[in-house]
Amino acid sequence: MNEKTFNDVVAHMKNTGFVFQGSEIYGGLSNTWDFGPLGVELKNNIKNAWWKRFIEEDPRNVGIQSAILMNPEVWVASGHVGGFSDPLMDCKECKSRFRADQLIEEATNHEVSAAGMSNEEMENFIKEHEIACPKCGAKNFTGIRQFNLMFKTYQGVLEDAKSTIYLRPETAQGIFVNFKNVQRTMRRKVPFGIGQIGKSFRNEITPGNFIFRTREFEQMELEFFCKPGTDLDWFKYYCDACLQFLYDLGIRKESLRLRAHDPEELAHYSNGTSDIEYQFSEPIGWGELWGIADRTDFDLKAHQEHSKQSLEYFDPATNEKYIPYVIEPSVGVERMMLALMCEAYTVEQLEKEERVVLKLHPVLAPYKVAVLPLSKKLSEPATEVFHMLSKHFSCTYDEAQSIGKRYRRQDAVGTPYCVTVDFDTAEDGCVTVRDRDTMAQERIAIKDLKAYLEPKFEW
Amino acid sequence: MNEKTFNDVVAHMKNTGFVFQGSEIYGGLSNTWDFGPLGVELKNNIKNAWWKRFIEEDPRNVGIQSAILMNPEVWVASGHVGGFSDPLMDCKECKSRFRADQLIEEATNHEVSAAGMSNEEMENFIKEHEIACPKCGAKNFTGIRQFNLMFKTYQGVLEDAKSTIYLRPETAQGIFVNFKNVQRTMRRKVPFGIGQIGKSFRNEITPGNFIFRTREFEQMELEFFCKPGTDLDWFKYYCDACLQFLYDLGIRKESLRLRAHDPEELAHYSNGTSDIEYQFSEPIGWGELWGIADRTDFDLKAHQEHSKQSLEYFDPATNEKYIPYVIEPSVGVERMMLALMCEAYTVEQLEKEERVVLKLHPVLAPYKVAVLPLSKKLSEPATEVFHMLSKHFSCTYDEAQSIGKRYRRQDAVGTPYCVTVDFDTAEDGCVTVRDRDTMAQERIAIKDLKAYLEPKFEW
Repeated sequence: MNEKTFNDVVAHMKNTGFVFQGSEIYGGLSNTWDFGPLGVELKNNIKNAWWKRFIEEDPRNVGIQSAILMNPEVWVASGHVGGFSDPLMDCKECKSRFRADQLIEEATNHEVSAAGMSNEEMENFIKEHEIACPKCGAKNFTGIRQFNLMFKTYQGVLEDAKSTIYLRPETAQGIFVNFKNVQRTMRRKVPFGIGQIGKSFRNEITPGNFIFRTREFEQMELEFFCKPGTDLDWFKYYCDACLQFLYDLGIRKESLRLRAHDPEELAHYSNGTSDIEYQFSEPIGWGELWGIADRTDFDLKAHQEHSKQSLEYFDPATNEKYIPYVIEPSVGVERMMLALMCEAYTVEQLEKEERVVLKLHPVLAPYKVAVLPLSKKLSEPATEVFHMLSKHFSCTYDEAQSIGKRYRRQDAVGTPYCVTVDFDTAEDGCVTVRDRDTMAQERIAIKDLKAYLEPKFEW
Repeated sequence: MNEKTFNDVVAHMKNTGFVFQGSEIYGGLSNTWDFGPLGVELKNNIKNAWWKRFIEEDPRNVGIQSAILMNPEVWVASGHVGGFSDPLMDCKECKSRFRADQLIEEATNHEVSAAGMSNEEMENFIKEHEIACPKCGAKNFTGIRQFNLMFKTYQGVLEDAKSTIYLRPETAQGIFVNFKNVQRTMRRKVPFGIGQIGKSFRNEITPGNFIFRTREFEQMELEFFCKPGTDLDWFKYYCDACLQFLYDLGIRKESLRLRAHDPEELAHYSNGTSDIEYQFSEPIGWGELWGIADRTDFDLKAHQEHSKQSLEYFDPATNEKYIPYVIEPSVGVERMMLALMCEAYTVEQLEKEERVVLKLHPVLAPYKVAVLPLSKKLSEPATEVFHMLSKHFSCTYDEAQSIGKRYRRQDAVGTPYCVTVDFDTAEDGCVTVRDRDTMAQERIAIKDLKAYLEPKFEW
């Protein structure tokens, strides 16, 4: 197995056009990232795979796209206005600001978990254990103040009608408020699910680890509505389905584990919550990738009470009325991308050289095929091949430098197949197809190329 | 030809799960919309078609996804902080607020265009022509104040480091600031293009006409960088390419027109700007759909000056250094969706009844195939067919009510093919495939279904 560190993976992503610092020419903007030509294709492929598996291939489920800007009452009902906040305290000496839970966990080398501690308990713990400011060493903190993580903005230009609104901190609430709209227009019977992919925003005090935690991120969330009492079965179903999704995208079983929340971590309304954790490259190690939660009827009930609109479901089979329970598998696109990149990044020792190869599953590869003329003289027939193939697959075209260098370049960005047009092509109507992983080459007729390649990208 | 009004199209989109009012159970949030299960599929198909045509099929072009939150200096350089504003004036009597240009244009029945008028000219025009408040009739307005259209928010939690940032009002600037990053990592030579699809936000005083103009919207923008002097050729190329894209998605030529901006409308830096206008259903009529602008080197130059980073391109063929010119075709996903829906919505008079059919191009249809068991007794083999087809196409499954009602339901949401499993299926291994437009039915073997359907969705 090759040695690779988290920093190697990050450097590779920055150098090959997967990720750039956001607003880089202006010195960046703290913790924002732009996705380059390779990165956006990989993200799109991740999103498409999720949508295909969880929405399109399941006759029970449908998708929506709700607005990022929602009526602020949504966030009152969901508890985000009141409770979506970090416990912050300032060092009175050097004025640095910290999250109290992180102070405790870092000071105890993560042997103590602050999850479930009240603010008072955290304040007391910090005093009793004489935890010092990590920056200046003083032991003189303010009390805890709660800082809300939602980004605020204002809509409307009429002074008296101008209203504070929030950038959504999660896509899930856009699903809950549309529960009835979807159920009615799509004539759904429980159990059924509604999924959404979209941006969310959290004004975190400590984002970090590259794209692991960012203030602006994309979520893929499914809310699966089921009859109370069947929820634990569906909870298990989705824990398994999410793991299977990751296996099917090429993540090895030993890189993944399912961790059930301890009773003190578990939200009071939840019948069960598990995190799929991925072992990111060192020194990051195990980190949360995908949360699957049995949220019971907490969300729909909260919206029913706050909006005064019935969100009950009438079950035509039993003539019962109830508020469905919901199972929520929730995952971030960028974090999944990072896990897939850690998994795929490989340094191979060949006979005479080292090669870096991104062993991404073909369905995820930013480019499925690279079309390479052996010489610039062949750019015309090679461009023809490009146009033929790009009707069906995401392709790239490269005619700069030696064919060997071009193969390495495609290996490094995960392109599963290189199609080389050479001087025999005009005569035999064939091209050379090179496999990224085996480096084996095969001679294939141009007219058979599509049929040859197509099954390799089925998923 | 069938009669249809804009309101018919809107009502249809609301009733069939394309669009819901945003945050509806809380009384909505002014001018926000949520896209239901059909709407999100249509939007995805529009975005995929654009991406395929303008990014994937063109070896010159690549995509990116830049952050919505950018360093605020980006918006200083681009001119948005200083100049992206509406000229607003208040009625001193009733306190209503209006856009001065719209007051003039509406008072003159659009015979006078305020484009190109200065604030002073607009104020004088309103006084001289005694334009009255549309709400209370008074002729007593304040002077014009410029109101910036960018949504503001604040990033960071440390009081002294808290900074005002903006929700991007366009995706284009995320491309300009990454010009060098993309050019370098992707080894591009001019001419080449960078495209992006993503959300933008504008705090408009008068959004409206359903999803025609919304405060939160998705843009599809391409910035095509070319050598100065070749720009007018590329400008024409992209005017043609954008029109062709719309034709290829099934919009009739007579519903589209290309309108060049008048000299007084044209931005001072532009060598030419044209709008593709679409004739929306009455009473909306002709409206802007797609803007194509030759922006010269205005944007890159502004960022070079403001960021002090060179954005020059070195041309290896001629050893010249220059700032490329840029052609920008820019279009909104929601507006294109609205145009496509106006175009597709059809009421047909059949012998015994009327049918509503959405004649969407198959590549755009939210569901490609509906799988329908003739009777609920056949749900098992029908579900098998669903699972087989949903590996390849977006499908829906429906077993409620008579087969005739189900056909109508699929017609109304544009599903091009209905596949019916009947009592003969078990014996002959065949299903009935019904065509949305012709209503003709064909008997096809299940094993040939994929091959039968696949070419119909090629685009």
